[in-house]
Amino acid sequence: SKESSAPHRHVTEFVGTAMGDTVGLVIANLDPQLHEYMKLDKKYRSIGFLSARTGGAPHVMAADEAVKATNTEVVSIEMARDTKGGAGHGATIIFAAEDVSDARRAVEITLEAVEKNFGNVYSSDAGHIELHYTARASMALEKGFNALVGKSFGIIVGAPAAIGLVMADTAVKTANVDVVTYASPNNGTARSNEIIISITGDSGAVKQSLLAAQEVGLSVLSSMGEIPKSGSTPTLI
Amino acid sequence: SKESSAPHRHVTEFVGTAMGDTVGLVIANLDPQLHEYMKLDKKYRSIGFLSARTGGAPHVMAADEAVKATNTEVVSIEMARDTKGGAGHGATIIFAAEDVSDARRAVEITLEAVEKNFGNVYSSDAGHIELHYTARASMALEKGFNALVGKSFGIIVGAPAAIGLVMADTAVKTANVDVVTYASPNNGTARSNEIIISITGDSGAVKQSLLAAQEVGLSVLSSMGEIPKSGSTPTLI
Amino acid sequence: SKESSAPHRHVTEFVGTAMGDTVGLVIANLDPQLHEYMKLDKKYRSIGFLSARTGGAPHVMAADEAVKATNTEVVSIEMARDTKGGAGHGATIIFAAEDVSDARRAVEITLEAVEKNFGNVYSSDAGHIELHYTARASMALEKGFNALVGKSFGIIVGAPAAIGLVMADTAVKTANVDVVTYASPNNGTARSNEIIISITGDSGAVKQSLLAAQEVGLSVLSSMGEIPKSGSTPTLI
Repeated sequence: SKESSAPHRHVTEFVGTAMGDTVGLVIANLDPQLHEYMKLDKKYRSIGFLSARTGGAPHVMAADEAVKATNTEVVSIEMARDTKGGAGHGATIIFAAEDVSDARRAVEITLEAVEKNFGNVYSSDAGHIELHYTARASMALEKGFNALVGKSFGIIVGAPAAIGLVMADTAVKTANVDVVTYASPNNGTARSNEIIISITGDSGAVKQSLLAAQEVGLSVLSSMGEIPKSGSTPTLI
Repeated sequence: SKESSAPHRHVTEFVGTAMGDTVGLVIANLDPQLHEYMKLDKKYRSIGFLSARTGGAPHVMAADEAVKATNTEVVSIEMARDTKGGAGHGATIIFAAEDVSDARRAVEITLEAVEKNFGNVYSSDAGHIELHYTARASMALEKGFNALVGKSFGIIVGAPAAIGLVMADTAVKTANVDVVTYASPNNGTARSNEIIISITGDSGAVKQSLLAAQEVGLSVLSSMGEIPKSGSTPTLI
Repeated sequence: SKESSAPHRHVTEFVGTAMGDTVGLVIANLDPQLHEYMKLDKKYRSIGFLSARTGGAPHVMAADEAVKATNTEVVSIEMARDTKGGAGHGATIIFAAEDVSDARRAVEITLEAVEKNFGNVYSSDAGHIELHYTARASMALEKGFNALVGKSFGIIVGAPAAIGLVMADTAVKTANVDVVTYASPNNGTARSNEIIISITGDSGAVKQSLLAAQEVGLSVLSSMGEIPKSGSTPTLI
């Protein structure tokens, strides 16, 4: 095999990269044919978008911050079965905007926020666990996880899937929270080896549930061999 | 990245681990919210469950032994697209029971039986083949592969999928067996790169078919480079 | 684990191997039970087939050459989520024929053509891009991508998926081409981390679109770290 010798022109659409083999891009005037295939609302000419090889929830959480801070709409969240041989997802998230500068800003904010969200993603050779918390869900979480906008919201992920289930059970028994979504290998995932729940409730209850789920998840995943490591800096402690 | 510094409490739900990056757990009283999301029969309070990163059929076969020996029901078998970058599945299997000790025992038996079932799983860098045999199928095989309970039953797997197809054709021509299920990348798998058939018939016919499929499968997989290796100790010889 | 000690008989069904962990096989008289499960037209007794761990479009392109040159029909194209931990697909393609020599020849031609088609597949640790062109689509491309037989046809793939989208937008803006298919992680792929479009139009327009898509794709993928490398010898230059 040989390296590409094609000239690498400056790509005006390029915005940046982030943890998770993530790349962010923008298109000022999406081609009308693609617009139709993608079933986007015609009022939006511009899109900002990003794909990650590794990370579903960390990227949706980051996009949630972006949509709060910009005049954009999250029009699509798709999950690939990926993580480069790991047990989970990669994500593709599309923001639509009337103005390309808004679309670009949404992608920038998302890319900036991703690394922080890997702080509560713990991985080992055997699998991974994730905990995500926001005090106030916005429209990316509504799109991706049916969150109620404005409410406290948490996401709990465990892989292999059995770990997600014991984390889920622990979480909902720990405090007064409601389950919003439940996904498993055959239903609601891209056939990833995960059980994923999202929860809502009082801010304190959601946090308490995540902490309890984290504790049991770390213990069980550790029992499978390696001690899991945080992707960046843990914040749920 | 840093290692988790969270205290690792003793997890009462933990049962054990097994080959395949497999972990087994038990929940004595499944939370009612999860119970509903998982669509389980309300008469069961307790579940025992396990997930593997690698191994669909070996784990269903092991669960079949467990369900024979315990007062449990196999209520769910889900297949992730996994094997850690390999061509096949990981499995999540849930046993339900009225009594938690039954659920725990089912998980224990399954974990103990898994390694033996990897004896007839042969893997190489290019793919894998699997042969599984039981003289008397029980309810895990009924749930996972539509087996007739009490009958001789065999499972044949080949990856990449073309190997499974030539193994399948060889098997059904070798002896008087009936095909029970046929699965391929687009139908009946989690988009794994496998063709999987299950067969029934007289005990001798099923065994003879598996042996012939094994021979052709090993030969073709070997032709792709490495000599495939058994996961533990071959028994179908 | 131990190596298989089973005797490796000569397998008459074996045809050959190719780049992509690809194996080709033939069955002269497909077993009637399998024939039915596979929903094949009864007039075909013989099948030739191949599976790849890595490569969807390169194999369909190769099969398109084979079907032009032989008296066979492409009866099935299935895409696994594979590439051995990469972001894309593996393919299983089945040719049916009344005569086994035709089926064998179709597999041989496909295997011979595959390596060339990896010339315009560029991969890095972060992802891959692909460009495929034919002046005259035949029935494998019709089956796999709804191509109009006899027309110029191009396929554009980018992974992670965002790269495919910016390549697609660039392609359709570059020249007067029509989008034939659009696939993304949740629709039309096996949950791969790709956006894939196929295009048709004048031969010159299709080529010009592919070149422009290649340039932007290589630039963006390069921005993610490694310089992508061609799988064999680039031809689209």
